[in-house]
Amino acid sequence: MDLSKLNQDISNVKPSVLRQFDHDISADPKIVKLTLGEPDFNVPDHIKQAAIKAIDNNESHYPYFWGVQELRDAASSYYHDKFGYNYTSDQIVVSVGATEGLAATFHTLFQPGDAVIIPTPAYPVYKSMSDVNHLQALMIDTRANGCVLTPEQVQQAIDEHPELNIRGVVITDPSNPTGAVYTEEQLHALVPVLRDNEIWVISDEIYGELTYGVKHYTLSKWLSDQTIVINGLSKSHAMTGWRLGFVFGPSGVIDLIAKCHQYQVTAATSIVQYAAIEAMTNGEEDAEAMRVIYEKRCNYLRTALGKLGLDIVKPQGAFYVFVSLPDAWKDDSMAFAKKLAKKQHVGVIPGAPFGDDHAIRISYAASDESIHAAVAGLKAVLEDIGAVPVE
Amino acid sequence: MDLSKLNQDISNVKPSVLRQFDHDISADPKIVKLTLGEPDFNVPDHIKQAAIKAIDNNESHYPYFWGVQELRDAASSYYHDKFGYNYTSDQIVVSVGATEGLAATFHTLFQPGDAVIIPTPAYPVYKSMSDVNHLQALMIDTRANGCVLTPEQVQQAIDEHPELNIRGVVITDPSNPTGAVYTEEQLHALVPVLRDNEIWVISDEIYGELTYGVKHYTLSKWLSDQTIVINGLSKSHAMTGWRLGFVFGPSGVIDLIAKCHQYQVTAATSIVQYAAIEAMTNGEEDAEAMRVIYEKRCNYLRTALGKLGLDIVKPQGAFYVFVSLPDAWKDDSMAFAKKLAKKQHVGVIPGAPFGDDHAIRISYAASDESIHAAVAGLKAVLEDIGAVPVE
Repeated sequence: MDLSKLNQDISNVKPSVLRQFDHDISADPKIVKLTLGEPDFNVPDHIKQAAIKAIDNNESHYPYFWGVQELRDAASSYYHDKFGYNYTSDQIVVSVGATEGLAATFHTLFQPGDAVIIPTPAYPVYKSMSDVNHLQALMIDTRANGCVLTPEQVQQAIDEHPELNIRGVVITDPSNPTGAVYTEEQLHALVPVLRDNEIWVISDEIYGELTYGVKHYTLSKWLSDQTIVINGLSKSHAMTGWRLGFVFGPSGVIDLIAKCHQYQVTAATSIVQYAAIEAMTNGEEDAEAMRVIYEKRCNYLRTALGKLGLDIVKPQGAFYVFVSLPDAWKDDSMAFAKKLAKKQHVGVIPGAPFGDDHAIRISYAASDESIHAAVAGLKAVLEDIGAVPVE
Repeated sequence: MDLSKLNQDISNVKPSVLRQFDHDISADPKIVKLTLGEPDFNVPDHIKQAAIKAIDNNESHYPYFWGVQELRDAASSYYHDKFGYNYTSDQIVVSVGATEGLAATFHTLFQPGDAVIIPTPAYPVYKSMSDVNHLQALMIDTRANGCVLTPEQVQQAIDEHPELNIRGVVITDPSNPTGAVYTEEQLHALVPVLRDNEIWVISDEIYGELTYGVKHYTLSKWLSDQTIVINGLSKSHAMTGWRLGFVFGPSGVIDLIAKCHQYQVTAATSIVQYAAIEAMTNGEEDAEAMRVIYEKRCNYLRTALGKLGLDIVKPQGAFYVFVSLPDAWKDDSMAFAKKLAKKQHVGVIPGAPFGDDHAIRISYAASDESIHAAVAGLKAVLEDIGAVPVE
């Protein structure tokens, strides 16, 4: 069979470098992994018990494709109380993790050929989702502004690209991979240019509960009629593998996203939905204990990396630091990550897929021991290339 | 915001009539539902225990996107032993139920504008998936041949539609909604025309374990290099809401489907994958007890519906009967289903979305009491419209 006749958008999209690199280095039994955005915490016990109860209660039938009503009711309240979201339960779709919510949103909002602004450094999946939907991804480098998109940059993109039909922008706040967090003013400043140009906002707030010394805000507060919010339990409740996300959006559009979601997956797993009701009802404080520990690790890493003379974006949220490689390193980010994995058995993700080929992303959703080992390994590689400052 | 600028493939696709009708009639507390393909059995206890063990063991992290290796190994053996599939574990993707496997397959195999043959009566999701991927669905009525597609029909479609780029065909065997099952000869007869015209086969075998007095065969036996098989645990192990499916395909293509799947959902739910290992390892006989009961119900229904003078396709598999409405009924199938629901509190699915607006689909994945009540309700409606034969 002639594979060139298959959907070229799928053939051409790059597989996830993050997950492939993580998978490949996992063959090393000594590897210390600070690769994926994978909490090292367990699912809170009361949520596990709720899942077990759902299994015992034989909650094994198809949930309504939008999601279990009680869960959508609970999520409506939970996120209203946490972040001021203003969505009723019939404006919420329960998705198979944030990824599936993003996939349904990308597929629904845009027509093939439309352009979407992706501020970089960015989680590479946005570009991949643009590719599989035959969209133009317009990458805007935000490193000069502390990794925060400005209205001037949006306007400039519009002015410089009259050939593009710019229909969307992705805001990841807190940011993966940099940990940057938008202030209320920075978000609010984006409102006029996005409103005037009728640009849909895909607001990925999956790390919203993990901020350090700053508060999380949502663009949906001011642009509710053109914002789709993505959130879920993967990071806040350490439920990555359980696959439970939410899509929030204005009526009309959310109905279309729900329909797209139905034809992607039918529904999210029933027993996980029942567990999520517990998380949304009695789990408001679950993230806090983890957040405190993440913050300590973050502070440790900032200090330790500073001592190694490394330059990082100041992290205020999520659980990553995005580290510029020293000038002494002349090769690309993948070569650095491979060297670190091979010589020191430390796994980090190369910066290239995020849009910076002279950087690495270190996840501190890992144990203290792993983080200490990673710093030691990093130090050894830096010494090896002659890039450790005199203490 | 102007919704006409959204993806018109999503805007235009019809929502699932099956699920919407099921949802709508569920508001009636007295309703007896024979609507969805939803086993009334519980998940076998050893599988439930395996899921609970996975929760206790904190299997809450991202599975590798292809699926847990041990599960793919087990599925490779299980389906080889059951049906003679010949797929190694690296030719198997674990999907979020059969639906997500189908979605990834449709998105990967075809380019926008390609045509796909859908033999009718058909599960309406195939048409919807064609629509959301901007494909042409070429519906071929198989009712004259016992609801089995013939090579002559495929050739005729090719000859009559030189304007179409026919790239795929969906074979549902056993069939939803008719319960028809292909013989080995009928499948084998399709091989030359499909091979000569390089037509991909999407072989939906989700009901493969549920056949009555006949054996299930697979086209993948003869057309392994151009067949994608869809299967999963929803029907065989009564795990619909748990969302666990498999996609089997030749190397090269399956790698692309895996990539598409990754950008749809990241991975299937971890705890369900661990439960599925148990199903694939020690659950070979799970379906049999259910199959025996389904067969009894099927026989009961055939007799009872025959006494009511109703004409049905002879069901040899799955858990549906597809019933032609009597000549005395002059309105469409939705009106009949609504009348049956309203007057007799019996829920069945109208035939229109399957491709026959003078039929209904009755699911016997329901308790004996429900099935008896449904027959009584059906009889009452038939009497009401003057369509019950003198006994």
